[in-house]
Amino acid sequence: MTTNTNFTKFEMGAIEELINQKFDGIQGKLFIGQKLGLTGSEASITCLPANTGVPFVNNHQKNEELYIILKGTGTFYIDGEEFPVREGSLIRIAPNSARSCKAGNQNLYFICIQAQEHSLTQATLQDGSICDVKASWMK
Amino acid sequence: MTTNTNFTKFEMGAIEELINQKFDGIQGKLFIGQKLGLTGSEASITCLPANTGVPFVNNHQKNEELYIILKGTGTFYIDGEEFPVREGSLIRIAPNSARSCKAGNQNLYFICIQAQEHSLTQATLQDGSICDVKASWMK
Repeated sequence: MTTNTNFTKFEMGAIEELINQKFDGIQGKLFIGQKLGLTGSEASITCLPANTGVPFVNNHQKNEELYIILKGTGTFYIDGEEFPVREGSLIRIAPNSARSCKAGNQNLYFICIQAQEHSLTQATLQDGSICDVKASWMK
Repeated sequence: MTTNTNFTKFEMGAIEELINQKFDGIQGKLFIGQKLGLTGSEASITCLPANTGVPFVNNHQKNEELYIILKGTGTFYIDGEEFPVREGSLIRIAPNSARSCKAGNQNLYFICIQAQEHSLTQATLQDGSICDVKASWMK
């Protein structure tokens, strides 16, 4: 891991290898926010083995979640409704919704981002500015 | 797209196909926050074609960024330092850091999450609670 004031980085390796790995003692899951010192969001990347499901339904108090399905197939449960997910499924879940998920007959790889609902005040062109410096490929 | 109060979903399709696709008029990039109505973060998924770079360096006012490299190889520039990235590289960038990136000799696929620095007050076990309902696979 590299750490300085301005950036932090960590190499998790090939994403498909997550099924065989433990990070911080947890099999098949990496909490990125803890690893990098994120202060605006928590993000995790998970491999749920084929034909296994999260064994509980949960909700959140303050945090909106975004799920990005990277690979595999599965089923999401939200507030009593169940629907299929696959690579490229993108799901926003409001804090006080009951949610869970299950892998189908393939391992299900997904990223989950938690951020406090209504905390974003500006983004992209409103938040960003062009800097008067150049990277090597701009010279 | 499915929208209700409690969740929103969108199917972007196979992630590798992003190089051939336009979403909302933008080639090779999907702004997920706009698509799903996120209020705590903006997230985007991008394919930068092989041997092309972002043509500018930028910074942010309020938002911390998290980059998750999904596939390919490339180079990141942060505050004058350049370093290689590849599948599984995870990078946090503080708001006022100058950043840019370039794909190597493979298309570079990445997710970028913007969230306001210091806006997360609790997450995971502190923010979540178990619900007294069951999904179909728990019965």
